[in-house]
Amino acid sequence: MSHNSFGHLFRVTTWGESHGPSIGCVIDGCPPRLALAERDIQPWLDRRRPGQSRFTTQRREADEVRILSGVFEGMTTGTPISLLIENTDQRSRDYGDIAAQFRPGHADYSYELKYGIRDWRGGGRSSARETAMRVAAGAVARVILGPSVRVRGALVQLGDDRVERGNWDWGEVERNPFFCPDVRAAARWEVKLDAARKAGSSVGAVIEVVAEGAPPGLGAPIYAKLDADLAAAMMGINAVKGVEIGEGFAAAALRGEDNADEMHMQDGLVRFGSNHAGGILGGISTGQPIVVRFAVKPTSSILTPRASVDRGGHDIEVVTKGRHDPCVGLRAVPVGEAMMACVLADHLLRHRAQNP
Amino acid sequence: MSHNSFGHLFRVTTWGESHGPSIGCVIDGCPPRLALAERDIQPWLDRRRPGQSRFTTQRREADEVRILSGVFEGMTTGTPISLLIENTDQRSRDYGDIAAQFRPGHADYSYELKYGIRDWRGGGRSSARETAMRVAAGAVARVILGPSVRVRGALVQLGDDRVERGNWDWGEVERNPFFCPDVRAAARWEVKLDAARKAGSSVGAVIEVVAEGAPPGLGAPIYAKLDADLAAAMMGINAVKGVEIGEGFAAAALRGEDNADEMHMQDGLVRFGSNHAGGILGGISTGQPIVVRFAVKPTSSILTPRASVDRGGHDIEVVTKGRHDPCVGLRAVPVGEAMMACVLADHLLRHRAQNP
Amino acid sequence: MSHNSFGHLFRVTTWGESHGPSIGCVIDGCPPRLALAERDIQPWLDRRRPGQSRFTTQRREADEVRILSGVFEGMTTGTPISLLIENTDQRSRDYGDIAAQFRPGHADYSYELKYGIRDWRGGGRSSARETAMRVAAGAVARVILGPSVRVRGALVQLGDDRVERGNWDWGEVERNPFFCPDVRAAARWEVKLDAARKAGSSVGAVIEVVAEGAPPGLGAPIYAKLDADLAAAMMGINAVKGVEIGEGFAAAALRGEDNADEMHMQDGLVRFGSNHAGGILGGISTGQPIVVRFAVKPTSSILTPRASVDRGGHDIEVVTKGRHDPCVGLRAVPVGEAMMACVLADHLLRHRAQNP
Amino acid sequence: MSHNSFGHLFRVTTWGESHGPSIGCVIDGCPPRLALAERDIQPWLDRRRPGQSRFTTQRREADEVRILSGVFEGMTTGTPISLLIENTDQRSRDYGDIAAQFRPGHADYSYELKYGIRDWRGGGRSSARETAMRVAAGAVARVILGPSVRVRGALVQLGDDRVERGNWDWGEVERNPFFCPDVRAAARWEVKLDAARKAGSSVGAVIEVVAEGAPPGLGAPIYAKLDADLAAAMMGINAVKGVEIGEGFAAAALRGEDNADEMHMQDGLVRFGSNHAGGILGGISTGQPIVVRFAVKPTSSILTPRASVDRGGHDIEVVTKGRHDPCVGLRAVPVGEAMMACVLADHLLRHRAQNP
Repeated sequence: MSHNSFGHLFRVTTWGESHGPSIGCVIDGCPPRLALAERDIQPWLDRRRPGQSRFTTQRREADEVRILSGVFEGMTTGTPISLLIENTDQRSRDYGDIAAQFRPGHADYSYELKYGIRDWRGGGRSSARETAMRVAAGAVARVILGPSVRVRGALVQLGDDRVERGNWDWGEVERNPFFCPDVRAAARWEVKLDAARKAGSSVGAVIEVVAEGAPPGLGAPIYAKLDADLAAAMMGINAVKGVEIGEGFAAAALRGEDNADEMHMQDGLVRFGSNHAGGILGGISTGQPIVVRFAVKPTSSILTPRASVDRGGHDIEVVTKGRHDPCVGLRAVPVGEAMMACVLADHLLRHRAQNP
Repeated sequence: MSHNSFGHLFRVTTWGESHGPSIGCVIDGCPPRLALAERDIQPWLDRRRPGQSRFTTQRREADEVRILSGVFEGMTTGTPISLLIENTDQRSRDYGDIAAQFRPGHADYSYELKYGIRDWRGGGRSSARETAMRVAAGAVARVILGPSVRVRGALVQLGDDRVERGNWDWGEVERNPFFCPDVRAAARWEVKLDAARKAGSSVGAVIEVVAEGAPPGLGAPIYAKLDADLAAAMMGINAVKGVEIGEGFAAAALRGEDNADEMHMQDGLVRFGSNHAGGILGGISTGQPIVVRFAVKPTSSILTPRASVDRGGHDIEVVTKGRHDPCVGLRAVPVGEAMMACVLADHLLRHRAQNP
Repeated sequence: MSHNSFGHLFRVTTWGESHGPSIGCVIDGCPPRLALAERDIQPWLDRRRPGQSRFTTQRREADEVRILSGVFEGMTTGTPISLLIENTDQRSRDYGDIAAQFRPGHADYSYELKYGIRDWRGGGRSSARETAMRVAAGAVARVILGPSVRVRGALVQLGDDRVERGNWDWGEVERNPFFCPDVRAAARWEVKLDAARKAGSSVGAVIEVVAEGAPPGLGAPIYAKLDADLAAAMMGINAVKGVEIGEGFAAAALRGEDNADEMHMQDGLVRFGSNHAGGILGGISTGQPIVVRFAVKPTSSILTPRASVDRGGHDIEVVTKGRHDPCVGLRAVPVGEAMMACVLADHLLRHRAQNP
Repeated sequence: MSHNSFGHLFRVTTWGESHGPSIGCVIDGCPPRLALAERDIQPWLDRRRPGQSRFTTQRREADEVRILSGVFEGMTTGTPISLLIENTDQRSRDYGDIAAQFRPGHADYSYELKYGIRDWRGGGRSSARETAMRVAAGAVARVILGPSVRVRGALVQLGDDRVERGNWDWGEVERNPFFCPDVRAAARWEVKLDAARKAGSSVGAVIEVVAEGAPPGLGAPIYAKLDADLAAAMMGINAVKGVEIGEGFAAAALRGEDNADEMHMQDGLVRFGSNHAGGILGGISTGQPIVVRFAVKPTSSILTPRASVDRGGHDIEVVTKGRHDPCVGLRAVPVGEAMMACVLADHLLRHRAQNP
């Protein structure tokens, strides 16, 4: 049991604070003899990196990852892989006024209640900066899964504005700063997000992550169901408030005959007529695309003043002046993909242990 | 690591199949010197027991629990508590025709893919019968949490019909067969569910579980966040397709200033002006009520014929004739409560280990 | 994490007290489609069963095992296997006088210190009765390992009297009540143990367990080394005070050049010239026989009066009158074998997860 | 589950290879608000550091530890503590000839069998260099245990030469390069070890570690017994072949009446007349000193040529020319202490979770 580890056989332990000297993770259980170098990890980190458009925090981090162990002559050895990123742009002065304040919607108050102490610089351990290591671990998970498994994410809702499913274009996701698969929605969102940013406000979002090509049989009932592990993985991302699989909450409003995915034989293979299940039945993958969505609340760090209290028990008003994202949901896309990849890699190893 | 265990310090391992001789669980880590007897567990099982109204399966099970270990002279001893329930009404003949069939929406196909074998009698291990042991374990978790923590659940949506929040009455939940807190919705649902049942169809549902009085500080960032563990716990219940905390998916459509729960001092204590967060910030409980909702898909076992395939690779049509619930969501209410209680008990132990 | 479970992928959770209604275990992670029935387990339990000679406790237990789940039509299904044995001869009256006494060398005092309560009937949870479930689990582990892996144990020292290595005959182990591989030592031990029994005394023993045919590569450095896991497995058996691998403590007195096992090629295969290492290098099996020895202290339950204290804080004298083994080491032989089998099965699954 | 982690609530994950850029560990679960700085860790590392006498490897490492996370303004925060040590004196050229050779008694061959690849530079992951991080983690464990718990180790046997118990002086341990508590034995050992070194040979050793002041109640039966966890902890140290608690293997030769530690009341407290049990009964600490001994085999890296094979399947002769310790047992003393501290800290947290 470890508070800061996830996965079991592909096991990732992360460490580090927003404004400490560095952040890192240790990946244990990676199979040996896989080609792995920093260049396999860096592109995924670059996708998540802040400061790439006016819609993400202006903190400038190179986010350059180094492999400190577990790789020899370009190949994994089966021993733990230690990854490290230096923090280079941690301006603690931006945060000085929050040392004694509890920002509404932040973890300040709950960390204080739990530990009686907190590293208040930039949110400390509760900062989304930690998600960089999830993305790095996800890159290693992708190497384990191999090229036949494709994990992709997209923003499908910004505030109350959803993409049109009919306009979906995965290529478009890489062409706009919103990871938006619908070119028209992207145009609307630019206006919307600019307005929120200028108003010192923020908006929420919904992200969808899809894994294609994942082998059937992943997931171990009853308490290591694939959907349950995905739910924990996504809900554990900063600011996430909801997770759904396949049809999700909409399934509640369907009839049994409409929700069941019918099967038939085609060229000797089983085919499904639909995918309400999101690729998972009884907690086990069926071979259909695995579809997960999660909701991200609007950034809690806003310029609009909010009522709060301080450590001394006084009523105060809080305005968060630091560098922040008007929609943290944007950068949650690569993080959600990484968590999906990690969960699948872990279950791949678990599955073959029991079912060789 | 265990596929069939949940929790870490309050750890429950369940076993058993729908039509085996019995089902059971082992609870490890329960603190010693707590008064515990079968009578503390049985009422919660009775609440979940099938066959109590025409809206649940007509399978007749006494669901009488026996404590086989871990309790001495009416007190827990700190050693593992073994609970066992005999299966008394397992009519395998009802299911004979499904031995070679894959029922759409069921775990038949995925178990077959994973294990190459499955106990097809009544769904075997994937049957909701297993949830009886979750309810039993939840009863023990409630003893650990003590009377100051109150965990209650209710059905808040049946099909596409939601309760009115203004009509909420916890007392009503115990008075209708739907666990519905809104007397008027309950009346509508009776008609709706009768219609679905007679049509050989089924409907989905949304359940809300609320824990009041839970101490602050529960939940261990980063990968044992209280909300992430709750998400896994609920998503792991049979037929669940979505989980949300507090405002949930609706938070995506809110502005930062509307979603933040403001704080102020009142009589020397910190008070929140709202509870969009659902009682959890940064993965840690704040002392506010902890609010979780989850969506249950419509029962997959329906009389309406659906296209499918069999083990031999032939196209077939499946009609499920066994005894089933037209809305499995109903009996998910006590199960959801139990999972909440188990997660809280586990985190209570975890918290005091690190923060004495 | 679980106090009452061992193994990770082949995971066994035991429950039950000496004088409760039954004892049992849940085996999680067993691969599917293995032929398994009670008749595969019962013979191993019979080997350990008390009351078979005048040298073991006269408690009469049938130790009849029942499989309650996880097996369908004679094959494992991959779901948890629940095993149960009824306690039939629990005479609590024999133990009535120890309810308030702390027997020297027993767990009475330490359980009281830890839990503030204990089931004193026959030692409760700390009774060696629990080891019956280890033997049952070991039988399932043997099925996983298959016929090419042979795990056998023998008593190599009774009190201060050791077997002659030159007389070793595995067949002899099954022919005397001491699991002794040396027919001459067995004759001496009969006299010795009769004397101890009649004197109301007891003696210790050393057991050796050897696994032949185990595949190389088992064991996961750094903290799941095969030898470390074997050490925990054996030290966790009741009354064990020491564990050693291969040359063991004698290795301390050797020179480097004498202790190193030289290797050479023979018919294209690597051969070792000796096995001081006991089949394990760097925590990983090499393919040589895996050799473990463990020391069992003399039974603490003796007729000779010993000074002690009671719960009320009074000096007392304790004489243990119950039915006991004059040498608990005898029945530790099948238990040690079972633990070896369980550790190897667990590591076999772990190994193939990472190294497919 | 993690191959490279130990402990459960006080959980340490180590990473790094002998000749990589650095080694490190992540400590998860440390309680908050403990004063901690590098200066609390460095002295323990200095005790273990190589190159301090002619009896340890001449590799020169500063072993300067840095805290990268988990500490804020001199206090632990409850978040993961990341520790890092740069490798500064890794001369890979010394080892070039062993890339394709399997050194007898080393992990070369077994790593190759398991992973099909190994970092052969200085033993890679299997090098005793990893134990530096155990010592660092042990220093943090000591902070958790507090000043009332005293964990000390000593070398009690070098080759076949044991200390006289009557000469025991803990102060002497710090005054000679052998951690020897017997001044006369130390004088003999100097001669003995010089001779072995000059002969290109090596000798084994036995280490004893004693914890005084540990609270009673630590250890969780049945499968997290304190002695079982200590056995795994010690057996997992490089080159260890045997572990014993209290009387250990000698207990096998005792009679029940001689081995039982009698108890009596003294000034209202329970006192033991002896400590054959080594402070542990039924897997739980009693409050007596906890006594563990472990045997270390003679260093496998010797100048005396030994027969072996290479990766290509040829018979070869191996002479290890690198910088090595003539007795690896010497530096195992601080490592054994650290493992004892880590096990106790973990069980302290576990105990108070269940028994508040």
